Amino acid sequence: MNAPLRNDTFLRACLRQPTEYTPLWLMRQAGRYLPEYNATRARAGSFMGLATSPQYATEVTLQPLERYALDAAILFSDILTVPDAMGLGLSFAAGEGPRFAKPVRDEASVAALAVPDMDRLRYVFDAVTSIRKALAGRVPLIGFSGSPWTLACYMVEGAGSDDYRLVKSMLYARPDLMHRILDINARAVAAYLNAQIDAGAQAVMVFDSWGGVLADGAFQAFSLDYTRRVVSALKREADGRRVPVIVFTKGGGLWLEQIAACGADVVGLDWTMGLGRARALVDDRVALQGNLDPNVLFAPPEAVAREAVAVLDAFGSPQRADGRWGGHVFNLGHGISQYTPPEHVTALVEAVHSHSRRLRR
Amino acid sequence: MNAPLRNDTFLRACLRQPTEYTPLWLMRQAGRYLPEYNATRARAGSFMGLATSPQYATEVTLQPLERYALDAAILFSDILTVPDAMGLGLSFAAGEGPRFAKPVRDEASVAALAVPDMDRLRYVFDAVTSIRKALAGRVPLIGFSGSPWTLACYMVEGAGSDDYRLVKSMLYARPDLMHRILDINARAVAAYLNAQIDAGAQAVMVFDSWGGVLADGAFQAFSLDYTRRVVSALKREADGRRVPVIVFTKGGGLWLEQIAACGADVVGLDWTMGLGRARALVDDRVALQGNLDPNVLFAPPEAVAREAVAVLDAFGSPQRADGRWGGHVFNLGHGISQYTPPEHVTALVEAVHSHSRRLRR
Repeated sequence: MNAPLRNDTFLRACLRQPTEYTPLWLMRQAGRYLPEYNATRARAGSFMGLATSPQYATEVTLQPLERYALDAAILFSDILTVPDAMGLGLSFAAGEGPRFAKPVRDEASVAALAVPDMDRLRYVFDAVTSIRKALAGRVPLIGFSGSPWTLACYMVEGAGSDDYRLVKSMLYARPDLMHRILDINARAVAAYLNAQIDAGAQAVMVFDSWGGVLADGAFQAFSLDYTRRVVSALKREADGRRVPVIVFTKGGGLWLEQIAACGADVVGLDWTMGLGRARALVDDRVALQGNLDPNVLFAPPEAVAREAVAVLDAFGSPQRADGRWGGHVFNLGHGISQYTPPEHVTALVEAVHSHSRRLRR
Repeated sequence: MNAPLRNDTFLRACLRQPTEYTPLWLMRQAGRYLPEYNATRARAGSFMGLATSPQYATEVTLQPLERYALDAAILFSDILTVPDAMGLGLSFAAGEGPRFAKPVRDEASVAALAVPDMDRLRYVFDAVTSIRKALAGRVPLIGFSGSPWTLACYMVEGAGSDDYRLVKSMLYARPDLMHRILDINARAVAAYLNAQIDAGAQAVMVFDSWGGVLADGAFQAFSLDYTRRVVSALKREADGRRVPVIVFTKGGGLWLEQIAACGADVVGLDWTMGLGRARALVDDRVALQGNLDPNVLFAPPEAVAREAVAVLDAFGSPQRADGRWGGHVFNLGHGISQYTPPEHVTALVEAVHSHSRRLRR
């Protein structure tokens, strides 16, 4: 039996219910900008040592909450756990990004793909249960996964890419193979997120980190359509509470209205789309999450506060003239940089909480 | 005295005048995907050896025109010639991107910046004159420059970047310094492009390659405003003909209407923005250039043709019901990849020319 939730501001904002202030959390909030994170990581030996240990994952997930008055925790994990469980052989070389030993690049390797047994991801669900228990009702816990398309990018490229040549070559030359990968990924991601919800996640987020690299038309067919399938297959209630679903397509501002119709409760935005314009486009049919440029956090605290206020003002008061509420979850438009001075985050949290209270008066 | 222009389809499309077909050229069309380019580059010894020699620059600029029925040539040069002329010390290490020996990161180095003497860029203007003569009226010659903001990114970062941490830190922490850099860049770019026009460029393009990394609001203040200053300072006529100005902001689709109002004749688009939607937004007040994903060129020729037709159809016939014309210049949404099979470009050119003739019937 989990402890009752003491701060549900984040969940209420996701569902466009009244809140006293605008909740915030930060993508990658448990990360290398925190000395205590680096200390734990050193003890764990590696990033995967951290991510595969429920105990370490719990420890680092809670670290930013000790420093900052954040309104949500997010599972510490990696977006590539699912293709790793498919047998692609994930590794992280020192100083480099992720790499798959067996990328999926031909008909035979696509034919061999299958939705993995969720038991192979047990360490993730154990981490969710452990973190939820350790949180003891302090703030809600967000689970997450990469989107089917974003996972496919890594599965085909075998690593990060700056031009997506291999995955787009397959998309344009063999759309049948690409659709097969995406179909498997969509079923795997849905099962993965549902198991996280069963394990205790109180909201889930789909990171469509690479949706924005697709051409108009290709985005809808190869990314959004599969994200929609995932969203429609998710459990939406746990412990008698709605489990909000957040979809974040980096660089997806041009497709905001279509993304907002995918069934998610919340759409994440990066900094290229003004929140006022975004809110007008979706007319509060979904909540919005975002969208400070994480590079703002390199500026002095006064500038951080000024830019945070600008983001809040762009959204405006969530209270509408017609009595309904919109929902805004403050966040960055991308993960926080490892070079961020931790004390600048203090200034950010303070500015968001205090100014958003003023906005509601 | 230059030879009369035999194929002015590109210039007419830029100015929204009737054309028999949709003209095309390809960003980076003289590049490493062509064996003849690599051969010339080997003789020149290096990229800068190529770019600083009017003779070599002429040779490689004309190479793609020998292979393909392209409708424009573009000056072979680099976008970083201007900051190099400012004394920042440009170099290209083998296998890496450009690097500046003296990046601009503090108050003193910003104070030391000045619009460079255009004589230091004489090799570029000599190349323009030489290429124009060698073209002998075959197709028009496009000159170009990086935008003030894009140049500033390289000047502050000192090299390419994937997070723009240094330049954005300066932007948010010391906007006064950033504005000073941009003011100098805008004046330098205007002088540079005007000198290219004097030397024989028949159209000019401003590459705002990194405008799309800015937050909404910051884009307008730190990129578009300075591009507008450049455009308004340009000579718009040479040899009794209008010199069209093209502005291309990669990732700038969300700001299309504002970019279209900057004074340019043509707005370049990447593949994330559908051309039909873009055309409706600007209502043919400017011509549009773009926007095939260059990764399409890795697919077989039939798929290349199909995707090219889709781009042409998205724009539709440039002839409007009201008798006016819109303008479409077919291009990629980014530079052509060095891994492109040259024969796929043949299929692209053929598809664009033949289908666009059909569209006009």
